Amino acid sequence: MAPRPVDAVIAAARGFLGDRLTTNAAMREQHAKGEDSSTPTLPDAVAFVETTEEASRLVALCHQHEVPVVAFGAGTSLEGHVNPVRGGISLDLSRMTAILEVNEQDMDCLIEPGVTRQQLNEHLRDKGMFFPVDPGSHCTIGGMVATRASGTNAVRYGTIRENTLGLEVVLADGRVIATGGRTRKAANGYDLTRLFIGSEGTLGIVTKVRLRLHGIPEAMSSAVVQFATLQGAVESVIQVMQMGIPVARIELLDDDMMAASIAYSKLEGYAPATTLFLKFHGSEAGVAEQAAMVEAITAEHGGTGFRWATDAAERNRLWKARHDSYWAGCAAKPGHKALTTDVCVPISRLAEALVGAKEEAKALGHFTCIVGHVGDGNFHQMVLYDPADPQGLERAWDMDRRIVERGLALGGTCSGEHGIGLGKREFLEREHGAEALAVMRGLKQTLDPKGILNPGKMFRN
Amino acid sequence: MAPRPVDAVIAAARGFLGDRLTTNAAMREQHAKGEDSSTPTLPDAVAFVETTEEASRLVALCHQHEVPVVAFGAGTSLEGHVNPVRGGISLDLSRMTAILEVNEQDMDCLIEPGVTRQQLNEHLRDKGMFFPVDPGSHCTIGGMVATRASGTNAVRYGTIRENTLGLEVVLADGRVIATGGRTRKAANGYDLTRLFIGSEGTLGIVTKVRLRLHGIPEAMSSAVVQFATLQGAVESVIQVMQMGIPVARIELLDDDMMAASIAYSKLEGYAPATTLFLKFHGSEAGVAEQAAMVEAITAEHGGTGFRWATDAAERNRLWKARHDSYWAGCAAKPGHKALTTDVCVPISRLAEALVGAKEEAKALGHFTCIVGHVGDGNFHQMVLYDPADPQGLERAWDMDRRIVERGLALGGTCSGEHGIGLGKREFLEREHGAEALAVMRGLKQTLDPKGILNPGKMFRN
Repeated sequence: MAPRPVDAVIAAARGFLGDRLTTNAAMREQHAKGEDSSTPTLPDAVAFVETTEEASRLVALCHQHEVPVVAFGAGTSLEGHVNPVRGGISLDLSRMTAILEVNEQDMDCLIEPGVTRQQLNEHLRDKGMFFPVDPGSHCTIGGMVATRASGTNAVRYGTIRENTLGLEVVLADGRVIATGGRTRKAANGYDLTRLFIGSEGTLGIVTKVRLRLHGIPEAMSSAVVQFATLQGAVESVIQVMQMGIPVARIELLDDDMMAASIAYSKLEGYAPATTLFLKFHGSEAGVAEQAAMVEAITAEHGGTGFRWATDAAERNRLWKARHDSYWAGCAAKPGHKALTTDVCVPISRLAEALVGAKEEAKALGHFTCIVGHVGDGNFHQMVLYDPADPQGLERAWDMDRRIVERGLALGGTCSGEHGIGLGKREFLEREHGAEALAVMRGLKQTLDPKGILNPGKMFRN
Repeated sequence: MAPRPVDAVIAAARGFLGDRLTTNAAMREQHAKGEDSSTPTLPDAVAFVETTEEASRLVALCHQHEVPVVAFGAGTSLEGHVNPVRGGISLDLSRMTAILEVNEQDMDCLIEPGVTRQQLNEHLRDKGMFFPVDPGSHCTIGGMVATRASGTNAVRYGTIRENTLGLEVVLADGRVIATGGRTRKAANGYDLTRLFIGSEGTLGIVTKVRLRLHGIPEAMSSAVVQFATLQGAVESVIQVMQMGIPVARIELLDDDMMAASIAYSKLEGYAPATTLFLKFHGSEAGVAEQAAMVEAITAEHGGTGFRWATDAAERNRLWKARHDSYWAGCAAKPGHKALTTDVCVPISRLAEALVGAKEEAKALGHFTCIVGHVGDGNFHQMVLYDPADPQGLERAWDMDRRIVERGLALGGTCSGEHGIGLGKREFLEREHGAEALAVMRGLKQTLDPKGILNPGKMFRN
């Protein structure tokens, strides 16, 4: 058999990576997909790089031999990003975990891409600062940059897009560039930082990230309020946003998700009804004032049983339940798995999107439950399916598509925060139009002319 | 004489623009430069387009005949952006002033690029919303997009980058694309919106802008506090930022600028000393609390005479003085003109940057005065020069370069908000490095292969 191009890469990369370049079957299995529902594909090899120089040399080799290279962090992608669908090298950055600089006066830091937000926040705690972007999972910050991640705090603090000052990126041919800088703003040329953020490993490999940090607020409190109708909850959210109340989080659980969470997380004393979880950051007086304003708004829209928790233990219990809602949803139907949608719509259309998708799912015999970053108009509708049913996953995908179609018809997007990856490629042209997609393809062609960077993702061919 | 390519464009464009395509000398003069100090260049013609279709047809003609096309809004650029250095067509978008949509529930709007922020805020006032990005001048929002503008409110509300949801852009060959969308966030492909923001008319012509809006706060107040030292003022700013006090504005005037403003704007009762102007947005209790916290912080750092103005007339008088500081600075030396720098540094280096630049200017015999968006580390040092002195402008440019060099050495950028244009091209490679600059050039080549869009700007050739 003729030697494959990837064999030349493997042989050469062993020279500087040693046994950190592995073709071990178990390791390849672990890098065959993320937490998504895609069909696993084994990479030809997994490379655990520890420095920018190693990443650069490896990518240059892949470029020379035209071998695909797929960046891998914690493997928490929900859209197939890390699945090496065309084989090649899985470039694992999870060992690049150094926190290189923390600048307390400027409230920024420079980190390697394998750092997780938990690790970073652990490190920052005694400095009175935190990094707010919180997608919930134990993802790496490199992965968050790649997918333009956001999560629960985005309504107040923005997404990773707004909280990244600059990047170090290995280009497709192995050259290394620095983008952005240390200043809070700049009008100094094309915004390469934002070009790489959300590019899902298709334009370059991120090897350093400079992040904005925030001061830990003097006071934090949480609140929970329940509604007889989804409409009432959504109207409350709209008014909270319009009044400019700077809520740190405003999350919605629909009745089915709340029922699942009560069972899974032992949330006694709550009804299985549509629920808003809120978090307030500010001064002592400020959070009290915010809570009072939100209580008044929710009461106007039929909210009942408003509870305000300043006690840290109670607050943590509530937010742990919110964070565990994915597992609660799965547990609601034993033996089932979940496909998670990620539609985001203008907030004025949110009630319509939620109610419509929920009713359609019911009519088609699906059990779904919803959790939403509603301040941003983003919601995840979990479609449960039985993996033992040969049509189960396909039917769930069909339902997922219907939810997306409804979102698009309401002026929304197929992805608020999980990205395009494999699963949402069909919607990219629909959303942006053929000409804008051609511009995206042109950028891809310019930055990765041989098409080695995460091929098969974002674009359909 | 052989017909020039531009003549073919002019003849064809007259067909659909009529006398809105003009070669009138006075009109060409008006489009020969912005408010910058560049040497004027006459465009061959000025085209007042009124629709996207007209802009598209005109750009397509320029593409066909390889004629330069330079977008023009209000002509307030401070870096030579609108100077048609290679002739061609000045594409004037200032008549595209329609406010096409305002969505109160979603707090967004869709506007044409010739709308000014004053016009927009006038329109929004009775809807309880406002658009916060405020560069001070009567610029158009299209121009703000092109230069990645920011201004006094950026410390709290972000720059135009954070407040733009999407764009309509005419590409170099006349094709029209829409970028972004109506949702507050999205992870749906490459961030074309951010690619065009700050591209200074070199990648496409913006013909529509969708903006995020904000609720008018319940309460607003202003404060002024003075310092014996620049260091004390800057240390105060750093601490305000670290504590996360959500000041809407925090602006610094140095002693010379304050003296000039006292004289020009009749600010009785203030000392000609380093001064911070602050603005607070929030609830009644919130702004009082913010002001009290800031007063305590500034007192620790030697701030004296803290005055809190909730009265709208007094507040407006103060902020008018701040807005007029450019004219106050010019008036400080009758007959002089000013070159304005735009350095931005990490805030921890701000005192060093300011004190160093001020002392160097004095040592070299320049009169300079400083106004700064100090919460962002951005400051404008006005270098006054005598236009009658044949070396005056050149000496001012030399001083400008020294201020930039110092800023770069402190980890800063040559431009916080005015852009690169003509005046800052020499620094672009210095800031980003040859490889990153090559990526920028690659993007330019991809999107404008014939180099017709604002040629000679941003890059030196």
